[in-house]
Amino acid sequence: MRIDIITLFPEMIFLFCNESILRKAQEKGLAEIHLHQLRDFAINKHGQVDDSPYGGSSGMVLRVEPLDQCISLLKSQREYDEIIFLTPDGVTFNQKIANTLSCDNNLMLVCGHYKGIDHRIREMHITQEISIGDFVLTGGELPAAIICDAIIRLIPGVLHDEQSALSDSFQDNLLAPPVYTRPAEYKGFAVPEVLLSGHFAKIHAWQQEESLARTKTLRPDLLD
Amino acid sequence: MRIDIITLFPEMIFLFCNESILRKAQEKGLAEIHLHQLRDFAINKHGQVDDSPYGGSSGMVLRVEPLDQCISLLKSQREYDEIIFLTPDGVTFNQKIANTLSCDNNLMLVCGHYKGIDHRIREMHITQEISIGDFVLTGGELPAAIICDAIIRLIPGVLHDEQSALSDSFQDNLLAPPVYTRPAEYKGFAVPEVLLSGHFAKIHAWQQEESLARTKTLRPDLLD
Repeated sequence: MRIDIITLFPEMIFLFCNESILRKAQEKGLAEIHLHQLRDFAINKHGQVDDSPYGGSSGMVLRVEPLDQCISLLKSQREYDEIIFLTPDGVTFNQKIANTLSCDNNLMLVCGHYKGIDHRIREMHITQEISIGDFVLTGGELPAAIICDAIIRLIPGVLHDEQSALSDSFQDNLLAPPVYTRPAEYKGFAVPEVLLSGHFAKIHAWQQEESLARTKTLRPDLLD
Repeated sequence: MRIDIITLFPEMIFLFCNESILRKAQEKGLAEIHLHQLRDFAINKHGQVDDSPYGGSSGMVLRVEPLDQCISLLKSQREYDEIIFLTPDGVTFNQKIANTLSCDNNLMLVCGHYKGIDHRIREMHITQEISIGDFVLTGGELPAAIICDAIIRLIPGVLHDEQSALSDSFQDNLLAPPVYTRPAEYKGFAVPEVLLSGHFAKIHAWQQEESLARTKTLRPDLLD
Protein backbone atom coordinates (compact mmCIF):
# COMPACT_ATOMS: atom_id res chain seq x y z
CA MET A 1 0.00 0.00 0.00
CA ARG A 2 1.10 3.52 -0.84
CA ILE A 3 -0.27 6.56 0.96
CA ASP A 4 0.41 10.12 -0.24
CA ILE A 5 -0.28 12.88 2.25
CA ILE A 6 -0.58 16.51 1.12
CA THR A 7 0.06 18.95 3.93
CA LEU A 8 1.46 22.35 4.82
CA PHE A 9 3.13 20.80 7.88
CA PRO A 10 4.85 17.55 6.90
CA GLU A 11 7.24 17.96 9.85
CA MET A 12 4.30 17.68 12.26
CA ILE A 13 3.77 14.05 11.36
CA PHE A 14 7.06 13.03 9.75
CA LEU A 15 8.43 11.40 12.89
CA PHE A 16 5.15 9.71 13.63
CA CYS A 17 5.06 8.19 10.15
CA ASN A 18 8.55 6.85 10.65
CA GLU A 19 8.25 5.31 14.12
CA SER A 20 6.78 2.20 15.69
CA ILE A 21 4.43 0.12 13.52
CA LEU A 22 4.55 2.52 10.57
CA ARG A 23 8.35 2.35 10.43
CA LYS A 24 8.29 -1.44 10.67
CA ALA A 25 5.67 -1.70 7.92
CA GLN A 26 7.79 0.47 5.63
CA GLU A 27 10.97 -1.46 6.44
CA LYS A 28 9.18 -4.70 5.57
CA GLY A 29 8.08 -3.16 2.24
CA LEU A 30 4.40 -3.50 3.17
CA ALA A 31 3.59 0.20 3.13
CA GLU A 32 4.99 3.50 1.89
CA ILE A 33 4.03 6.91 3.19
CA HIS A 34 4.97 9.94 1.11
CA LEU A 35 4.57 13.42 2.52
CA HIS A 36 4.08 16.29 0.05
CA GLN A 37 4.69 19.90 1.04
CA LEU A 38 1.81 21.94 -0.33
CA ARG A 39 3.96 25.08 -0.26
CA ASP A 40 6.00 23.64 -3.16
CA PHE A 41 2.90 24.48 -5.23
CA ALA A 42 2.53 28.05 -3.96
CA ILE A 43 0.97 30.66 -6.27
CA ASN A 44 3.90 33.08 -5.98
CA LYS A 45 7.52 33.31 -4.89
CA HIS A 46 6.41 34.38 -1.41
CA GLY A 47 5.11 30.86 -0.90
CA GLN A 48 1.48 31.93 -0.71
CA VAL A 49 -1.00 29.06 -0.49
CA ASP A 50 -3.91 30.64 1.40
CA ASP A 51 -6.10 33.71 1.33
CA SER A 52 -8.97 35.25 3.30
CA PRO A 53 -12.37 33.70 2.73
CA TYR A 54 -14.93 35.33 0.46
CA GLY A 55 -17.84 36.71 2.42
CA GLY A 56 -15.75 38.22 5.19
CA SER A 57 -15.49 35.36 7.68
CA SER A 58 -12.44 35.03 9.92
CA GLY A 59 -9.54 32.64 9.43
CA MET A 60 -7.61 31.71 6.29
CA VAL A 61 -8.59 29.31 3.51
CA LEU A 62 -6.24 27.16 1.40
CA ARG A 63 -6.48 28.31 -2.22
CA VAL A 64 -7.64 26.07 -5.01
CA GLU A 65 -4.56 26.30 -7.33
CA PRO A 66 -1.81 24.76 -5.15
CA LEU A 67 -4.05 21.87 -4.08
CA ASP A 68 -5.28 21.26 -7.62
CA GLN A 69 -1.72 21.23 -8.97
CA CYS A 70 -0.38 18.89 -6.31
CA ILE A 71 -3.33 16.48 -6.52
CA SER A 72 -3.29 16.53 -10.34
CA LEU A 73 0.44 15.78 -10.44
CA LEU A 74 -0.01 12.75 -8.18
CA LYS A 75 -3.05 11.56 -10.15
CA SER A 76 -0.98 11.71 -13.34
CA GLN A 77 1.56 9.34 -11.75
CA ARG A 78 -0.74 6.55 -10.56
CA GLU A 79 -4.34 5.58 -10.07
CA TYR A 80 -5.77 6.30 -6.63
CA ASP A 81 -8.41 4.13 -5.01
CA GLU A 82 -9.52 7.09 -2.92
CA ILE A 83 -8.63 10.75 -2.57
CA ILE A 84 -9.64 11.53 0.97
CA PHE A 85 -10.15 14.95 2.51
CA LEU A 86 -9.95 15.05 6.32
CA THR A 87 -12.72 17.33 7.54
CA PRO A 88 -15.01 17.56 10.56
CA ASP A 89 -18.07 17.34 8.26
CA GLY A 90 -16.98 14.05 6.68
CA VAL A 91 -18.21 10.55 7.47
CA THR A 92 -17.06 9.52 10.94
CA PHE A 93 -14.07 7.17 10.73
CA ASN A 94 -14.50 3.76 12.34
CA GLN A 95 -12.99 0.30 12.30
CA LYS A 96 -15.16 -0.80 9.38
CA ILE A 97 -13.82 2.03 7.21
CA ALA A 98 -10.31 1.17 8.41
CA ASN A 99 -10.81 -2.46 7.36
CA THR A 100 -12.05 -1.39 3.91
CA LEU A 101 -9.27 1.13 3.29
CA SER A 102 -6.62 -1.38 4.39
CA CYS A 103 -7.40 -3.38 1.23
CA ASP A 104 -6.63 -0.46 -1.12
CA ASN A 105 -3.37 0.02 -3.03
CA ASN A 106 -3.06 3.80 -3.42
CA LEU A 107 -4.60 6.36 -1.13
CA MET A 108 -4.21 10.12 -1.14
CA LEU A 109 -4.94 12.07 2.05
CA VAL A 110 -5.47 15.82 1.81
CA CYS A 111 -4.99 17.77 5.03
CA GLY A 112 -6.77 21.07 5.45
CA HIS A 113 -5.37 23.68 7.79
CA TYR A 114 -6.61 26.98 9.22
CA LYS A 115 -10.28 27.56 8.28
CA GLY A 116 -10.35 24.85 5.61
CA ILE A 117 -9.80 24.43 1.88
CA ASP A 118 -11.53 26.14 -1.03
CA HIS A 119 -14.70 24.11 -1.48
CA ARG A 120 -14.11 23.66 -5.22
CA ILE A 121 -11.27 21.22 -4.52
CA ARG A 122 -13.79 18.97 -2.84
CA GLU A 123 -15.95 19.06 -5.96
CA MET A 124 -13.04 18.61 -8.37
CA HIS A 125 -10.98 15.84 -6.79
CA ILE A 126 -12.14 14.44 -3.48
CA THR A 127 -13.73 10.96 -3.57
CA GLN A 128 -14.27 10.50 0.17
CA GLU A 129 -14.54 12.90 3.13
CA ILE A 130 -13.62 11.53 6.52
CA SER A 131 -13.88 13.00 9.98
CA ILE A 132 -12.20 11.30 12.88
CA GLY A 133 -14.67 12.71 15.38
CA ASP A 134 -16.92 15.55 16.48
CA PHE A 135 -14.20 17.96 17.47
CA VAL A 136 -12.16 20.62 15.75
CA LEU A 137 -8.41 20.47 15.24
CA THR A 138 -5.90 22.90 13.81
CA GLY A 139 -5.46 20.79 10.71
CA GLY A 140 -5.87 17.43 9.06
CA GLU A 141 -2.35 16.24 9.91
CA LEU A 142 -3.20 14.24 13.04
CA PRO A 143 -6.30 12.72 11.43
CA ALA A 144 -4.14 11.67 8.46
CA ALA A 145 -1.63 10.05 10.83
CA ILE A 146 -4.50 8.30 12.63
CA ILE A 147 -5.84 6.87 9.39
CA CYS A 148 -2.34 5.65 8.43
CA ASP A 149 -1.90 3.98 11.81
CA ALA A 150 -5.38 2.42 11.88
CA ILE A 151 -5.15 0.91 8.41
CA ILE A 152 -1.48 0.01 8.09
CA ARG A 153 -1.57 -2.11 11.25
CA LEU A 154 -4.29 -4.21 9.58
CA ILE A 155 -2.14 -5.14 6.58
CA PRO A 156 -1.20 -8.82 6.93
CA GLY A 157 2.39 -9.15 8.14
CA VAL A 158 2.64 -5.74 9.80
CA LEU A 159 1.84 -6.81 13.37
CA HIS A 160 3.99 -9.58 14.87
CA ASP A 161 0.94 -11.52 15.80
CA GLU A 162 -2.08 -11.27 13.57
CA GLN A 163 -4.30 -12.57 16.33
CA SER A 164 -3.52 -9.41 18.19
CA ALA A 165 -5.40 -7.16 15.74
CA LEU A 166 -8.35 -9.56 15.57
CA SER A 167 -8.87 -9.46 19.33
CA ASP A 168 -8.87 -5.65 19.49
CA SER A 169 -11.88 -3.63 20.50
CA PHE A 170 -14.52 -3.10 17.73
CA GLN A 171 -13.44 -5.98 15.48
CA ASP A 172 -16.47 -7.91 16.77
CA ASN A 173 -18.47 -4.83 17.86
CA LEU A 174 -17.47 -5.52 21.46
CA LEU A 175 -15.06 -3.65 23.69
CA ALA A 176 -11.99 -5.64 24.63
CA PRO A 177 -11.93 -7.29 28.10
CA PRO A 178 -9.58 -5.87 30.79
CA VAL A 179 -5.98 -7.07 30.50
CA TYR A 180 -3.52 -7.86 33.28
CA THR A 181 0.09 -8.92 33.50
CA ARG A 182 2.63 -9.74 36.20
CA PRO A 183 2.84 -9.26 39.17
CA ALA A 184 -0.29 -11.09 40.33
CA GLU A 185 -0.61 -8.72 43.27
CA TYR A 186 0.51 -5.10 43.54
CA LYS A 187 -0.22 -2.78 46.47
CA GLY A 188 -3.29 -4.81 47.40
CA PHE A 189 -4.67 -4.89 43.86
CA ALA A 190 -4.96 -8.49 42.64
CA VAL A 191 -5.41 -9.97 39.19
CA PRO A 192 -8.79 -11.79 38.79
CA GLU A 193 -8.19 -15.38 39.89
CA VAL A 194 -9.61 -17.02 36.80
CA LEU A 195 -6.79 -15.52 34.71
CA LEU A 196 -4.23 -17.38 36.86
CA SER A 197 -6.12 -20.69 36.70
CA GLY A 198 -4.56 -21.99 33.47
CA HIS A 199 -8.05 -23.20 32.51
CA PHE A 200 -8.38 -21.80 29.01
CA ALA A 201 -12.08 -22.49 28.51
CA LYS A 202 -12.91 -20.66 31.75
CA ILE A 203 -10.57 -17.81 30.86
CA HIS A 204 -12.16 -17.46 27.44
CA ALA A 205 -15.64 -17.49 28.96
CA TRP A 206 -14.62 -14.82 31.50
CA GLN A 207 -13.18 -12.63 28.74
CA GLN A 208 -16.36 -12.95 26.67
CA GLU A 209 -18.50 -12.08 29.69
CA GLU A 210 -16.34 -9.07 30.54
CA SER A 211 -16.39 -7.88 26.94
CA LEU A 212 -20.14 -8.07 26.80
CA ALA A 213 -20.63 -6.52 30.25
CA ARG A 214 -18.27 -3.64 29.48
CA THR A 215 -19.93 -3.02 26.14
CA LYS A 216 -23.41 -3.05 27.73
CA THR A 217 -22.32 -0.59 30.40
CA LEU A 218 -20.01 1.70 28.47
CA ARG A 219 -21.19 1.53 24.86
CA PRO A 220 -24.66 -0.02 24.57
CA ASP A 221 -24.96 1.66 21.13
CA LEU A 222 -22.45 -0.84 19.72
CA LEU A 223 -24.89 -3.69 20.39
CA ASP A 224 -27.82 -2.14 18.47
CA MET B 1 -2.44 25.05 31.32
CA ARG B 2 0.06 22.27 31.87
CA ILE B 3 -0.30 18.87 30.19
CA ASP B 4 1.88 15.89 31.16
CA ILE B 5 1.94 12.99 28.72
CA ILE B 6 3.26 9.59 29.76
CA THR B 7 4.35 7.48 26.80
CA LEU B 8 6.81 4.87 25.58
CA PHE B 9 7.20 6.84 22.34
CA PRO B 10 7.66 10.54 23.16
CA GLU B 11 9.51 10.99 19.85
CA MET B 12 6.35 10.02 17.95
CA ILE B 13 4.59 13.19 19.04
CA PHE B 14 7.44 15.46 20.13
CA LEU B 15 7.54 17.39 16.87
CA PHE B 16 3.81 17.65 16.72
CA CYS B 17 3.69 19.12 20.23
CA ASN B 18 6.26 21.70 19.21
CA GLU B 19 4.82 22.88 15.89
CA SER B 20 2.03 25.12 14.68
CA ILE B 21 -0.56 26.19 17.27
CA LEU B 22 0.96 24.14 20.09
CA ARG B 23 4.36 25.76 19.62
CA LYS B 24 2.81 29.23 19.52
CA ALA B 25 0.76 28.53 22.65
CA GLN B 26 3.89 27.44 24.50
CA GLU B 27 5.91 30.42 23.25
CA LYS B 28 3.18 32.74 24.51
CA GLY B 29 3.30 31.01 27.91
CA LEU B 30 -0.33 29.88 27.60
CA ALA B 31 0.39 26.14 27.64
CA GLU B 32 3.15 23.69 28.55
CA ILE B 33 3.38 20.14 27.29
CA HIS B 34 5.74 17.78 29.11
CA LEU B 35 6.51 14.38 27.66
CA HIS B 36 7.58 11.63 30.08
CA GLN B 37 9.37 8.52 28.87
CA LEU B 38 7.78 5.55 30.62
CA ARG B 39 10.94 3.51 30.10
CA ASP B 40 12.70 5.71 32.68
CA PHE B 41 10.55 3.80 35.20
CA ALA B 42 11.39 0.32 33.87
CA ILE B 43 11.38 -2.61 36.32
CA ASN B 44 14.93 -3.70 35.47
CA LYS B 45 18.13 -2.58 33.81
CA HIS B 46 16.96 -4.09 30.52
CA GLY B 47 14.36 -1.36 30.36
CA GLN B 48 11.43 -3.75 30.71
CA VAL B 49 8.03 -2.07 31.00
CA ASP B 50 5.70 -4.72 29.55
CA ASP B 51 4.90 -8.41 29.86
CA SER B 52 2.59 -11.00 28.31
CA PRO B 53 -1.01 -10.88 29.48
CA TYR B 54 -2.35 -13.29 32.08
CA GLY B 55 -4.75 -15.77 30.56
CA GLY B 56 -2.71 -16.41 27.45
CA SER B 57 -4.00 -13.77 25.04
CA SER B 58 -1.71 -12.37 22.36
CA GLY B 59 0.09 -9.02 22.46
CA MET B 60 1.96 -7.31 25.28
CA VAL B 61 0.58 -5.40 28.25
CA LEU B 62 2.23 -2.44 30.03
CA ARG B 63 3.04 -3.47 33.61
CA VAL B 64 1.58 -1.76 36.63
CA GLU B 65 4.82 -0.70 38.42
CA PRO B 66 6.36 1.70 35.85
CA LEU B 67 3.05 3.45 35.27
CA ASP B 68 2.28 3.64 38.98
CA GLN B 69 5.69 5.12 39.74
CA CYS B 70 5.57 7.70 36.98
CA ILE B 71 2.00 8.79 37.75
CA SER B 72 2.68 8.87 41.51
CA LEU B 73 5.78 11.01 41.03
CA LEU B 74 3.84 13.55 38.97
CA LYS B 75 0.93 13.53 41.44
CA SER B 76 3.38 14.30 44.25
CA GLN B 77 4.50 17.42 42.37
CA ARG B 78 1.14 19.08 41.65
CA GLU B 79 -2.59 18.55 41.78
CA TYR B 80 -4.15 17.22 38.58
CA ASP B 81 -7.65 18.14 37.49
CA GLU B 82 -7.86 14.92 35.50
CA ILE B 83 -5.68 11.88 34.89
CA ILE B 84 -6.87 10.65 31.53
CA PHE B 85 -6.26 7.25 29.98
CA LEU B 86 -6.64 7.12 26.20
CA THR B 87 -8.47 3.91 25.36
CA PRO B 88 -10.96 2.71 22.75
CA ASP B 89 -13.43 1.79 25.52
CA GLY B 90 -13.49 5.29 27.02
CA VAL B 91 -16.07 8.03 26.55
CA THR B 92 -15.99 9.31 22.97
CA PHE B 93 -14.15 12.62 22.77
CA ASN B 94 -16.13 15.55 21.37
CA GLN B 95 -16.11 19.34 21.27
CA LYS B 96 -18.03 19.59 24.53
CA ILE B 97 -15.36 17.57 26.37
CA ALA B 98 -12.70 19.70 24.65
CA ASN B 99 -14.40 22.88 25.87
CA THR B 100 -14.55 21.52 29.44
CA LEU B 101 -10.95 20.30 29.53
CA SER B 102 -9.70 23.60 28.09
CA CYS B 103 -10.66 25.25 31.41
CA ASP B 104 -8.45 22.93 33.51
CA ASN B 105 -5.01 23.82 34.85
CA ASN B 106 -3.20 20.48 35.05
CA LEU B 107 -3.98 17.44 32.96
CA MET B 108 -2.15 14.12 32.79
CA LEU B 109 -2.57 11.95 29.70
CA VAL B 110 -1.56 8.28 29.89
CA CYS B 111 -0.87 6.57 26.57
CA GLY B 112 -1.29 2.83 26.33
CA HIS B 113 0.63 0.91 23.71
CA TYR B 114 0.55 -2.66 22.40
CA LYS B 115 -2.41 -4.58 23.88
CA GLY B 116 -3.07 -2.02 26.63
CA ILE B 117 -2.14 -1.32 30.23
CA ASP B 118 -2.57 -3.47 33.31
CA HIS B 119 -6.17 -2.82 34.34
CA ARG B 120 -5.20 -2.06 37.94
CA ILE B 121 -3.68 1.26 36.89
CA ARG B 122 -7.11 2.31 35.71
CA GLU B 123 -8.55 1.49 39.14
CA MET B 124 -5.68 3.12 41.06
CA HIS B 125 -5.16 6.41 39.26
CA ILE B 126 -7.29 7.15 36.23
CA THR B 127 -10.06 9.73 36.70
CA GLN B 128 -11.34 9.83 33.11
CA GLU B 129 -11.13 7.43 30.16
CA ILE B 130 -11.37 8.94 26.72
CA SER B 131 -11.60 7.37 23.28
CA ILE B 132 -11.20 9.49 20.21
CA GLY B 133 -13.30 7.14 18.11
CA ASP B 134 -14.43 3.62 17.29
CA PHE B 135 -11.17 2.41 15.80
CA VAL B 136 -8.01 0.81 17.08
CA LEU B 137 -4.60 2.44 16.97
CA THR B 138 -1.14 1.22 17.90
CA GLY B 139 -1.05 3.43 20.96
CA GLY B 140 -2.46 6.42 22.76
CA GLU B 141 0.12 8.85 21.40
CA LEU B 142 -1.91 10.26 18.50
CA PRO B 143 -5.06 10.51 20.64
CA ALA B 144 -3.03 12.41 23.26
CA ALA B 145 -1.77 14.80 20.58
CA ILE B 146 -5.34 15.25 19.33
CA ILE B 147 -6.59 16.16 22.77
CA CYS B 148 -3.74 18.66 23.20
CA ASP B 149 -4.53 20.26 19.85
CA ALA B 150 -8.30 20.34 20.39
CA ILE B 151 -8.13 21.93 23.83
CA ILE B 152 -5.09 24.21 23.58
CA ARG B 153 -6.50 26.02 20.54
CA LEU B 154 -9.51 26.94 22.70
CA ILE B 155 -7.44 28.72 25.36
CA PRO B 156 -8.07 32.47 24.97
CA GLY B 157 -5.15 34.14 23.21
CA VAL B 158 -3.86 31.03 21.41
CA LEU B 159 -5.57 31.59 18.05
CA HIS B 160 -4.94 34.91 16.30
CA ASP B 161 -8.59 35.47 15.94
CA GLU B 162 -10.88 34.17 18.63
CA GLN B 163 -13.86 34.43 16.32
CA SER B 164 -12.24 31.75 14.24
CA ALA B 165 -12.67 29.03 16.89
CA LEU B 166 -16.24 30.11 17.61
CA SER B 167 -17.29 29.68 13.99
CA ASP B 168 -15.86 26.16 13.71
CA SER B 169 -17.98 23.09 13.15
CA PHE B 170 -19.68 21.69 16.29
CA GLN B 171 -19.47 24.83 18.41
CA ASP B 172 -23.16 25.39 17.69
CA ASN B 173 -23.98 21.77 16.83
CA LEU B 174 -23.91 22.64 13.14
CA LEU B 175 -21.36 21.80 10.50
CA ALA B 176 -19.50 24.79 9.11
CA PRO B 177 -20.64 26.20 5.75
CA PRO B 178 -18.40 25.72 2.67
CA VAL B 179 -15.56 28.22 2.41
CA TYR B 180 -14.09 29.81 -0.72
CA THR B 181 -11.27 32.19 -1.48
CA ARG B 182 -9.69 33.85 -4.52
CA PRO B 183 -9.80 33.38 -7.50
CA ALA B 184 -13.54 33.81 -8.09
CA GLU B 185 -13.39 31.41 -11.00
CA TYR B 186 -11.03 28.50 -11.57
CA LYS B 187 -11.24 25.98 -14.39
CA GLY B 188 -14.96 26.62 -14.77
CA PHE B 189 -15.68 26.27 -11.05
CA ALA B 190 -17.13 29.52 -9.69
CA VAL B 191 -17.56 30.82 -6.16
CA PRO B 192 -21.26 31.19 -5.18
CA GLU B 193 -22.32 34.69 -6.24
CA VAL B 194 -23.75 35.74 -2.92
CA LEU B 195 -20.27 35.55 -1.36
CA LEU B 196 -19.01 38.17 -3.82
CA SER B 197 -21.99 40.48 -3.27
CA GLY B 198 -20.55 42.39 -0.32
CA HIS B 199 -24.02 42.21 1.25
CA PHE B 200 -23.22 40.90 4.71
CA ALA B 201 -26.75 40.12 5.82
CA LYS B 202 -27.33 38.00 2.71
CA ILE B 203 -23.95 36.31 3.14
CA HIS B 204 -24.72 35.49 6.75
CA ALA B 205 -28.13 34.11 5.81
CA TRP B 206 -26.57 31.96 3.06
CA GLN B 207 -23.95 30.61 5.48
CA GLN B 208 -26.64 29.75 8.05
CA GLU B 209 -28.72 28.01 5.39
CA GLU B 210 -25.72 26.04 4.11
CA SER B 211 -24.72 25.05 7.64
CA LEU B 212 -28.18 23.78 8.39
CA ALA B 213 -28.59 22.04 5.02
CA ARG B 214 -25.20 20.33 5.30
CA THR B 215 -25.92 19.22 8.86
CA LYS B 216 -29.35 17.85 7.85
CA THR B 217 -27.85 15.92 4.96
CA LEU B 218 -24.55 14.77 6.41
CA ARG B 219 -25.10 14.60 10.17
CA PRO B 220 -28.81 14.68 11.07
CA ASP B 221 -27.87 13.13 14.44
CA LEU B 222 -26.33 16.46 15.53
CA LEU B 223 -29.77 18.10 15.32
CA ASP B 224 -31.53 15.60 17.66
